[in-house]
Amino acid sequence: RERVHAVVTSRRFQQLIVVVILINAATLGLETVPAIAAGHEATLKVIDHAALYVFVAELLAKVYAERARFLRDPWNIFDALIVAIALVPSTGGLSVLRSLRILRALRLLSVVPSLRRVVSALLRAMPGMSSIVVLLALVLYVAGVMATKLYGGAAPERFGSLPASLFTLFQTMTGDDWGNIARQVMTLHPSAWIFFTAFILISTFIVLNLFMAVVVSAMDE
Amino acid sequence: RERVHAVVTSRRFQQLIVVVILINAATLGLETVPAIAAGHEATLKVIDHAALYVFVAELLAKVYAERARFLRDPWNIFDALIVAIALVPSTGGLSVLRSLRILRALRLLSVVPSLRRVVSALLRAMPGMSSIVVLLALVLYVAGVMATKLYGGAAPERFGSLPASLFTLFQTMTGDDWGNIARQVMTLHPSAWIFFTAFILISTFIVLNLFMAVVVSAMDE
Amino acid sequence: RERVHAVVTSRRFQQLIVVVILINAATLGLETVPAIAAGHEATLKVIDHAALYVFVAELLAKVYAERARFLRDPWNIFDALIVAIALVPSTGGLSVLRSLRILRALRLLSVVPSLRRVVSALLRAMPGMSSIVVLLALVLYVAGVMATKLYGGAAPERFGSLPASLFTLFQTMTGDDWGNIARQVMTLHPSAWIFFTAFILISTFIVLNLFMAVVVSAMDE
Amino acid sequence: RERVHAVVTSRRFQQLIVVVILINAATLGLETVPAIAAGHEATLKVIDHAALYVFVAELLAKVYAERARFLRDPWNIFDALIVAIALVPSTGGLSVLRSLRILRALRLLSVVPSLRRVVSALLRAMPGMSSIVVLLALVLYVAGVMATKLYGGAAPERFGSLPASLFTLFQTMTGDDWGNIARQVMTLHPSAWIFFTAFILISTFIVLNLFMAVVVSAMDE
Ligand code: NA
Ligand code: NA
Repeated sequence: RERVHAVVTSRRFQQLIVVVILINAATLGLETVPAIAAGHEATLKVIDHAALYVFVAELLAKVYAERARFLRDPWNIFDALIVAIALVPSTGGLSVLRSLRILRALRLLSVVPSLRRVVSALLRAMPGMSSIVVLLALVLYVAGVMATKLYGGAAPERFGSLPASLFTLFQTMTGDDWGNIARQVMTLHPSAWIFFTAFILISTFIVLNLFMAVVVSAMDE
Repeated sequence: RERVHAVVTSRRFQQLIVVVILINAATLGLETVPAIAAGHEATLKVIDHAALYVFVAELLAKVYAERARFLRDPWNIFDALIVAIALVPSTGGLSVLRSLRILRALRLLSVVPSLRRVVSALLRAMPGMSSIVVLLALVLYVAGVMATKLYGGAAPERFGSLPASLFTLFQTMTGDDWGNIARQVMTLHPSAWIFFTAFILISTFIVLNLFMAVVVSAMDE
Repeated sequence: RERVHAVVTSRRFQQLIVVVILINAATLGLETVPAIAAGHEATLKVIDHAALYVFVAELLAKVYAERARFLRDPWNIFDALIVAIALVPSTGGLSVLRSLRILRALRLLSVVPSLRRVVSALLRAMPGMSSIVVLLALVLYVAGVMATKLYGGAAPERFGSLPASLFTLFQTMTGDDWGNIARQVMTLHPSAWIFFTAFILISTFIVLNLFMAVVVSAMDE
Repeated sequence: RERVHAVVTSRRFQQLIVVVILINAATLGLETVPAIAAGHEATLKVIDHAALYVFVAELLAKVYAERARFLRDPWNIFDALIVAIALVPSTGGLSVLRSLRILRALRLLSVVPSLRRVVSALLRAMPGMSSIVVLLALVLYVAGVMATKLYGGAAPERFGSLPASLFTLFQTMTGDDWGNIARQVMTLHPSAWIFFTAFILISTFIVLNLFMAVVVSAMDE
């Protein structure tokens, strides 16, 4: 078992895995370029299956070598989930699950040390943001319910139901096409500009402070 | 009165209030999803009324326990206003006031300590921004009057009156669809690009400095 | 002369000027709201003229009191220019000059101390940005000439001449509607996505560093 | 050779080169303004050729004076490449290469010291960003393959092939018109909002951290 562990954690082995991931990501990508995929479906499928076997073998070797410790590293669970997703569609066949096979390319995040460090840093920044994110979600929810009640009649395809309103308000928050949406509502409710400008100012201010929280916490490190 | 105060400020009581707020926010949200609301209007209304009674009872208990001190905490006034809004529509019936009932969900901001802290921090950042906000408002106003005089004839639905111009310029400031608006004006006034690019550069520069002021003041803390 | 100087720089006198500026800004704004302006043109004109007389009198008093020193304060030159603009249209009558009368509202920037400080801070941040701004202008110019040569035929109304290209590229830099512009060009030049994504990445990167320069220089203070 | 070196690196000589670059940039720009270029093609061509001769002579003088050291300064290679591009079209005649002649204006970056410093600073900021850029590219690639598989049928002109999807997702990342694209997909795949909002949130979060990395590294200096 010691020897399996030494092999699995060796630099050369990890470089091999990176190469397999990159080849697999490339073949999964090529499948979506009709001009290239046509006539090579069989080859692409073989490479895809071979890569999957390598990943399963790697996981089993790791489990054998590390036993209970395997579950302690969240990156191992991340890898296991991604491989598991890849195994489901080969039995089932749902198009959504098939499209999730490309998530295997994300295994690079756990294998390449520099990417692993970047993602860890991103994840560490998240807890400091949680309160502001909850505040933003609350503002979005309150504005969504209000918009549905007030403007659901004037612009049914934008604010006809709560999910539609939440989508439209998220779009407004990103500044996309909100002027036309607001103008459409304002033909029936001339005072709607108050709602839209207030929502943009408040949500932008909260996002600004979210940003600030991330920068300040990054500087503390 | 001491005992009422102890109960009202107890952790368990505040958790109960949080639960009531969440349930009430959920029922007010469900009202806006026609597929779910249909047939359950009565149930939703009962829950809504019950939640309101709880909030009123909580407020009265707080007033009884804290008396004059009650008014010293701005969060109490915030809570009282939100409950007051909820009481008006039950007598009146204006659709705008009815839609404001969802503002009760914002009571989470005053009850959950971590949200309370975030909002306090956001509000503390505001005084440091006031001069830059006044400057931005002044630039917007001056540009609005100029645009109305210069381009009111060329694009009446965009710059036909001062309120229309202010709305269009705010939209321009957020970068939404300004290219098409400017092109429309430029068919009659070819030099309008000067106005639009100058306005975007100046307003972006001011917003940038607004942002900077917030970041710097946050770092000082 | 000493007494005139004492009066002109007194707090009460400056507050009077602020009030006159605000009233004048309001009347110039009201002129652009047809519903209100109709029937009150004469009143608005009288107030406008009265305000102008006050500003001219203030300037003359300052010149009398400060003589050569008057020209040493750039804010005085700013005030003089704005009043001068206001005097031209009363003789001439060009619509552009008439619309510039609202610039008088910007006199608030020189009279209100807190606004004066903010504007001074903004102006002080500018020299540190000059090299990056020149770089951005150079990139915009080079991209503009290239786009005109390459895509002038494919999208004449967007890239038909250098000024048109510069406008379209500035719009692209602000992220407004660039996807549709690029798609239009890509129907004839499929490789145009390289030009557009490269331009967006480079210009955004430069703007990001511009921003960074401002933040860092602000922190140094 | 010493004397040639002294001349080439003298301040006056460099100012001369700056003037030639500016004149050449201006004439290349004028070529794209039909109203001005008409009737002056010959003059513009002569100036263009003269400028090119000056640049070639300058390069040769530098090579003569610095010999092997010439290749050690990356700015010299930058200058040589730009002049080389300018020499190709005069023999060939491809429109793309002709349009690249304006890149000569970028020689300002290597000749003007303050611009040289800014560009060096920008390039120094790049290595610190590499891991995050790779992460962003990976997320874009994975999302591109998924979108092509899932939405290629619903919106062929947006997600019909991998390159089309990558372009559309880059556009979505810049916040341009993504609401309409998402709505189009959602008519067939109502759950597509999950894909779009997740993609926007994740890519924005990564860009935010990219930005943060640049700011923090700039502060360290
Ligand atoms: Na847009
Ligand atoms: Na936009």
